[in-house]
Amino acid sequence: MRKKIIVLAVLLLYFGVSLFAQEGDYSLEDALDMVWLFCGAILVFVMQAGFALVEAGLTRAKNATNIIMKNLMDFCFGALVYWALGWGLMYGADTLGILGTSDFFKGLMGDYTFYRDWFFQVVFAATAATIVSGAMAERTQFKSYLVYTCFISAFIYPISGHWIWGGGWLSNLGFHDFAGSTVVHSVGGWAALIGAAVLGPRQGKYVKGPDGTISVKAFPGHNLTFACLGVFLLWFGWYGFNGASTLSGMDPAIARVCVTTTLAASAGTVSALITSWIWFKKPDASMSMNGALAGLVSITAPCFVVSPAASVVIGLIGGVLVVGAVEFIDKVLKIDDPVGASSVHLVCGIWGTLAVGLWGNMEGTAVGLFHGGGFRQLRIQLVGILSVGLWAALTSLILFLAIKAILGLRVSPKDELMGLDITEHKTEAYAGFQIFSNM
Amino acid sequence: MRKKIIVLAVLLLYFGVSLFAQEGDYSLEDALDMVWLFCGAILVFVMQAGFALVEAGLTRAKNATNIIMKNLMDFCFGALVYWALGWGLMYGADTLGILGTSDFFKGLMGDYTFYRDWFFQVVFAATAATIVSGAMAERTQFKSYLVYTCFISAFIYPISGHWIWGGGWLSNLGFHDFAGSTVVHSVGGWAALIGAAVLGPRQGKYVKGPDGTISVKAFPGHNLTFACLGVFLLWFGWYGFNGASTLSGMDPAIARVCVTTTLAASAGTVSALITSWIWFKKPDASMSMNGALAGLVSITAPCFVVSPAASVVIGLIGGVLVVGAVEFIDKVLKIDDPVGASSVHLVCGIWGTLAVGLWGNMEGTAVGLFHGGGFRQLRIQLVGILSVGLWAALTSLILFLAIKAILGLRVSPKDELMGLDITEHKTEAYAGFQIFSNM
Amino acid sequence: MRKKIIVLAVLLLYFGVSLFAQEGDYSLEDALDMVWLFCGAILVFVMQAGFALVEAGLTRAKNATNIIMKNLMDFCFGALVYWALGWGLMYGADTLGILGTSDFFKGLMGDYTFYRDWFFQVVFAATAATIVSGAMAERTQFKSYLVYTCFISAFIYPISGHWIWGGGWLSNLGFHDFAGSTVVHSVGGWAALIGAAVLGPRQGKYVKGPDGTISVKAFPGHNLTFACLGVFLLWFGWYGFNGASTLSGMDPAIARVCVTTTLAASAGTVSALITSWIWFKKPDASMSMNGALAGLVSITAPCFVVSPAASVVIGLIGGVLVVGAVEFIDKVLKIDDPVGASSVHLVCGIWGTLAVGLWGNMEGTAVGLFHGGGFRQLRIQLVGILSVGLWAALTSLILFLAIKAILGLRVSPKDELMGLDITEHKTEAYAGFQIFSNM
Repeated sequence: MRKKIIVLAVLLLYFGVSLFAQEGDYSLEDALDMVWLFCGAILVFVMQAGFALVEAGLTRAKNATNIIMKNLMDFCFGALVYWALGWGLMYGADTLGILGTSDFFKGLMGDYTFYRDWFFQVVFAATAATIVSGAMAERTQFKSYLVYTCFISAFIYPISGHWIWGGGWLSNLGFHDFAGSTVVHSVGGWAALIGAAVLGPRQGKYVKGPDGTISVKAFPGHNLTFACLGVFLLWFGWYGFNGASTLSGMDPAIARVCVTTTLAASAGTVSALITSWIWFKKPDASMSMNGALAGLVSITAPCFVVSPAASVVIGLIGGVLVVGAVEFIDKVLKIDDPVGASSVHLVCGIWGTLAVGLWGNMEGTAVGLFHGGGFRQLRIQLVGILSVGLWAALTSLILFLAIKAILGLRVSPKDELMGLDITEHKTEAYAGFQIFSNM
Repeated sequence: MRKKIIVLAVLLLYFGVSLFAQEGDYSLEDALDMVWLFCGAILVFVMQAGFALVEAGLTRAKNATNIIMKNLMDFCFGALVYWALGWGLMYGADTLGILGTSDFFKGLMGDYTFYRDWFFQVVFAATAATIVSGAMAERTQFKSYLVYTCFISAFIYPISGHWIWGGGWLSNLGFHDFAGSTVVHSVGGWAALIGAAVLGPRQGKYVKGPDGTISVKAFPGHNLTFACLGVFLLWFGWYGFNGASTLSGMDPAIARVCVTTTLAASAGTVSALITSWIWFKKPDASMSMNGALAGLVSITAPCFVVSPAASVVIGLIGGVLVVGAVEFIDKVLKIDDPVGASSVHLVCGIWGTLAVGLWGNMEGTAVGLFHGGGFRQLRIQLVGILSVGLWAALTSLILFLAIKAILGLRVSPKDELMGLDITEHKTEAYAGFQIFSNM
Repeated sequence: MRKKIIVLAVLLLYFGVSLFAQEGDYSLEDALDMVWLFCGAILVFVMQAGFALVEAGLTRAKNATNIIMKNLMDFCFGALVYWALGWGLMYGADTLGILGTSDFFKGLMGDYTFYRDWFFQVVFAATAATIVSGAMAERTQFKSYLVYTCFISAFIYPISGHWIWGGGWLSNLGFHDFAGSTVVHSVGGWAALIGAAVLGPRQGKYVKGPDGTISVKAFPGHNLTFACLGVFLLWFGWYGFNGASTLSGMDPAIARVCVTTTLAASAGTVSALITSWIWFKKPDASMSMNGALAGLVSITAPCFVVSPAASVVIGLIGGVLVVGAVEFIDKVLKIDDPVGASSVHLVCGIWGTLAVGLWGNMEGTAVGLFHGGGFRQLRIQLVGILSVGLWAALTSLILFLAIKAILGLRVSPKDELMGLDITEHKTEAYAGFQIFSNM
């Protein structure tokens, strides 16, 4: 006991050492950049609320507490591990183009650029981690979730992030991913898809009939208003995600990014609506919402380098892709992704990254295939998609299998039926309301 | 089929052509304006979430999906048609003071001022369109809604908008509407009122008793917490709506606009609360919320040109007006506007526009009647109110009658009873909850 | 009647007088400060929505309308009285270091700095007032709530605020409270604790068994998703609360404030989670959410003067403290604070204020005990905590006792059982849903 107290006291003293670096000249341009990145960062932060609402809204009431807790916790654990490890791996001094190897646990000093950039980057790291929670909803153990979210924020995301944004080999190759269709969304999407596959489907999702055919059951979400509010908050926050990825408030292209983001998201929503209307004979709500997110993910890589007209096309195609991908993953691959996270973030993340090679214009040079830029950029984009995909898929597969073996990944069938709110958290999300939770 | 593919390929190529204009000198002032208008635009964007929550919260659970889908879709379709047509009609080269006639479908090039201004304007256009959805809630066909929201965003709003903000005849006359009490709110409010009238009341709203008297039924909203969150989000976004209508981050009057907006909204809430308390013997929640919106709509036109003290009075009167208007439209006119959209946006939009002529001070000159400025400005404000009112009412009347004749405007009585979520979208908003929807 | 009309007319004319002060030179620095404080103010404004959702979500469905009405109204009444009285008491010309005595009812003129600063300050005043509503939820008369919220915003908060931020005696003493752990949170927390004590517990909260032991009942909240969304919105807004308390957009320390805020909030959430997991054998949702708020309140005073590492420790301790405080106040003091407002805002407000004296570095000088700064600053912080605590506790005690004697503070037992929505507001928050409200 005494030993524990001494350790604690030493830690307190250590942590308390605080040497603020001297700030040098701080110009108006610097100040504007700061305000701009502040706005961007808090907008990306509020996307956490959007993810929580979309994921909770599209799943069942008996698991709502679990979902919001996961979304809250992946940010909180994520921020701490990204501070301790992730930042250093992603933006520390480059080693062989593969990973950063300095600036870990950076608590003792720092000038304003470190603070500013860390704040802007930590919210992106948290986004990658949070994508996974939707795909693995309604059946994952809470403690296992905490473990893998830490690994994603501390290792998986930062290392491939280093390749592209941290001065690593893909950035040297000329790979372009302006705001993270690949860096953030595909990485999260791969982990989501692999996680959902390793975990297996929810009980009652795929039922073999007496004749051997498998029927696929849909579990409707318990609150579409929450889901819609979540989509609006995500879209709102995405203006920071894409807009502030200029990293400078002095860039007139901020406006172009906002326009392409708006048009692609609108086009994605409209095309998902129409696709669902033709295919399923109804203007489907959750498909339309996923269409908005599909448009946003699709334009995240190319938002800086394409015209408004191209952004409309990119969004339209993203909206069709997401509907097809949801059906394909659900009905053909038979991987149970309750909210369609892998369709939105992985499939459209890939599509958006490719779109740079189709319609991109970089600093006055047409690199897109459809602008006569040839296949060069498209090939580079493909290399990035494949290498990051390989990294993310492989490391998450190892991670999930290891957790499954060591801790267990899935709750018991009985707990799953009762709902994770009662069994994992000993609470109800909606006390006082009668809920038919055994659907 | 092959023909279709060729058409698609040509379109893709065409859309892909992207010639970014060269940016000239870009000063710090330009950069600050950009950041400022960005902040304004995204705040107005988030008002879409506010509208969705207010409208959904104040109506019945069986129609919630339909309402949020309408709110999502009017932004998405609206952004696309405003890009294709609306912007050009509103801000294109002026023709006879009546409408703009250039810059349609502006996808191929643009300098940063176009991108910046379009982004700021599209969110205003979407606000005008979304006002209508509340008034026509719970009985309108979804496809018909999509058609008329496109017409409002593409034609009705931009043309009267051109008169006032696009360099048209009302602006030349000296009409003042700083942030859109008339441009946005009255136009939306007229369309809402006409739409609700053409559509007719919800089933069971006005019931003739055996003695010939008509009893008016109230349908309570299904989630007042949503409605209240919506009000907060609208108020939050309104700071962008009013504040950023300076169009420049270099204007010290931004602060004055925020103060008058805050005080008028607060005063409107308080006076609607007190009015409802005296009149209905209860501190009514939905009236108070509408009071907040009433204060906000009322101060939208005069926020730049009145003192804090005047803003309190403008808000107080707005809050009384909205309660009176809700009762008058509901009980006397017997037009069924489920959320009070026409009372909030039309009645208070008119009031706010008039208030400019009562307490306005423009560039050091008192133009308001109560400042000794005489009746001149008041007359100009009246001309604007009447001409825009005539335009909006007439065109929406034609629009709704045409849709009614061609597509049908209203769902079947059976569908209305079952709720539009099931009948139009084949879903429930709150799966798992027991809802008494046949109230 | 005629007399009333004349009075009204005179008032209208008086209020209409509007002499806008001339603006002097307005530099780019001024403009950036304006945009910065605008961003800060609207972020703090949106915290009202966060409070409403946390308080509503953590209480019962039968009182939800009442809670959201209180949250809406404390801002609206608060803004009006802060304009009339509070601002002058807090920031008017200093008298004896105790209170301000000018600039009341400032409606007639003002230069941009007044407008700007008032807008930024009014949202802080509203935060202090709104803290109380959660602690006194589910049993307070609505009209009494309106009275005491006006007194808090007009008198209690501004006077102690003057001591610290308005140039009063505590600021002269060297007391440091960067963004208001004491100024805002402790003051609100004291009023919350005293209010809940004077009011007494909810029916059925503490039940004496046949053997004389008292069992403590927990009333679960009706919507944890709302509560979580509220936490995210509070956290989002807190970046404005802490960040913009630099009062200048030209300060590079904005970034440091954001990093310490992020880390402390994350650490608070994590430590509250772990504490609840060990103590109650479950990863408790409402404790974790309160942990996030605990971290945020704890870092509010020291966010500007501590290192990232210290902020992690401050947050970790805050998260443990809040769990202990909730249990202590609930089980030992037997004061019924339904949402834990006094634990979050009072206990962690005190802790955060002390932390300045433990790890603070001010302008290059180490004042914190753990940096070798000695006990001086810690003593000053204690003086501030005690004097403000005495002021807030005493004045709120007098206020609540006076209201209890004159108006009554509590609803009737029958009304409490039925719920305040029906009895105070004649409405249901969730019409159409079956709710078991008599828990």
